[in-house]
Amino acid sequence: MNVDLRHHGDAEVGGGLADFAVNVRTGTPPEWLAARIRASVADLAAYPDPRPARRAVARRHGRSVGEVLLTAGAAEAFVLLARVLAPRRAVVVHPQFTEPEAALRAAGHEVERVILSKDFTLDPALVPEDADLVVVGNPTNPTSVLHPADAVAALAGPGRTVVVDEAFMDVVPGEPESLASRLPAGIVVIRSLTKTWGLAGLRAGYILADPRLVGRLAEAQPLWAVSTPALVAVEACSAPEAVAEAEGWAVELGVERDRLAVELSGRGLYVVPEARASFLCLCVPDALGIRALLRQRGYAVRRGDTFPGLGSDWLRIAVRDRPSNDRLLEELRELGI
Amino acid sequence: MNVDLRHHGDAEVGGGLADFAVNVRTGTPPEWLAARIRASVADLAAYPDPRPARRAVARRHGRSVGEVLLTAGAAEAFVLLARVLAPRRAVVVHPQFTEPEAALRAAGHEVERVILSKDFTLDPALVPEDADLVVVGNPTNPTSVLHPADAVAALAGPGRTVVVDEAFMDVVPGEPESLASRLPAGIVVIRSLTKTWGLAGLRAGYILADPRLVGRLAEAQPLWAVSTPALVAVEACSAPEAVAEAEGWAVELGVERDRLAVELSGRGLYVVPEARASFLCLCVPDALGIRALLRQRGYAVRRGDTFPGLGSDWLRIAVRDRPSNDRLLEELRELGI
Repeated sequence: MNVDLRHHGDAEVGGGLADFAVNVRTGTPPEWLAARIRASVADLAAYPDPRPARRAVARRHGRSVGEVLLTAGAAEAFVLLARVLAPRRAVVVHPQFTEPEAALRAAGHEVERVILSKDFTLDPALVPEDADLVVVGNPTNPTSVLHPADAVAALAGPGRTVVVDEAFMDVVPGEPESLASRLPAGIVVIRSLTKTWGLAGLRAGYILADPRLVGRLAEAQPLWAVSTPALVAVEACSAPEAVAEAEGWAVELGVERDRLAVELSGRGLYVVPEARASFLCLCVPDALGIRALLRQRGYAVRRGDTFPGLGSDWLRIAVRDRPSNDRLLEELRELGI
Repeated sequence: MNVDLRHHGDAEVGGGLADFAVNVRTGTPPEWLAARIRASVADLAAYPDPRPARRAVARRHGRSVGEVLLTAGAAEAFVLLARVLAPRRAVVVHPQFTEPEAALRAAGHEVERVILSKDFTLDPALVPEDADLVVVGNPTNPTSVLHPADAVAALAGPGRTVVVDEAFMDVVPGEPESLASRLPAGIVVIRSLTKTWGLAGLRAGYILADPRLVGRLAEAQPLWAVSTPALVAVEACSAPEAVAEAEGWAVELGVERDRLAVELSGRGLYVVPEARASFLCLCVPDALGIRALLRQRGYAVRRGDTFPGLGSDWLRIAVRDRPSNDRLLEELRELGI
């Protein structure tokens, strides 16, 4: 299957369209955080000092500082891993965010795809035993499926690195299936501040991994890779009060997501069950046609056909606030859905 | 010579020391620019869109958009070039900023050093004829020497890429020796907003090169590599009024730099002649001892011994405003200089 791995939701919005295509919370960042970031502009003449943010991330996940590498978003994390690791057999579990595969290919690696079937639950038996690099998303973009931590951890084994993209984990209240605080041997966790905190434009994320791997990734990273405003945001969002605030949103979001899923399912659509992230993944005949009609009506939803393992009958819809979601539901009804 | 190529001036400041070690303008960014950057915080929920900044840079240098790649500071530019180019014989002209060599080595390349002698003027004959990658700074950090554009352009030739680090070029009024607007075949120009605009913490720079090379570098770059605040700054600082404002500072700075050079030379120190950047490079017996004494007195100057081609008798001093420079001169006098 030859799809455009470099297509992302941000290419689907703009022109005044209501945005159900990009999985970033709307109305963010909150004012207290925006004020902290604005205040950092007074310090821009100095080179960035990542140490306080690194310490804050380590504390937030109960890790040591040596297990933390701050990155210019999760996207830089994928590029660094692709450059530093030298896999003999790299496997990406799809459907999932396409940048890890794109970064591996750009670095010259062959990539095999494991495509999950039935409800997109993780089946570790599908991964070839001699794969020495496995990339998996949890919860998974675009399916919204949350894999059990034990199933993800079971992918690890001698001589194998398992990269877990937890960019959406903070939309799962309590993060029960996160490996960030456990970090079993061979597991690399990637996190992002983008979605929950509305900081897609700031480029702020991090890697949690074995200190030796962190050291090698740091060697490959450009000097001063993360900007001062991003560091300020990472530090602020890692504080206990911020984590609690984000968890409050996650609870609210979950209620609205489940309502939207029930409503769409009730209309006979297949909604990938057990959605736990901030979006829903739907199968509907002629999804691309529906997407085109929605765009005419001022609504952007994410095409599913650029995700390996989905196809032209799939859409991804970001969960917004209740009035926005109701407007989308009304538009869909007018289209006969 | 085994020196720490990863040592930079930012490691020499802090703890309340007066900063003569880092070559970033003080009192920057100006309020109009700071206000623009602060305002961009309202747009952080969206992914960065580099197109307006890229167009602004192209216009500023009279290049096409396809010749411009925005980067997270000049440091990222060096890493991208080191990863994309596959030199058989890479040469770095020293003394110069050490990151290009560090990035080449981190990417697995061997690096040969050409060390300039007598006043550190560029002698193209020193560069081996079969070098297919040559890196040179102009004006050069740490020597402050500005090479003639024609001498730099003369380094180019069939099968060779010449990377010109022009990170300090905007401190030279009128930029008569810049190759940014000429961009002869085989020349790659790297620029930065860091020094003049006081944006070291923002990570904003760019590469000007042949569109084919720009395309290859873009492929190697992480997605959304440059943050929205940095893009806003790049666009703003590329406007004609901003370029004129920077040129005004450059003129003032030049006057103060030349006064400081005359004063230090008058005390019998060797100051690298024809300084044209925002710093001076000095040879003085027991420079490291003087640096230590200055630190005790609250003044940070940049050690020279971590630059290949200099040694333990060298210091680099940033040019500050007249009262600050006078205070440093007074301290030096009390040390018997």
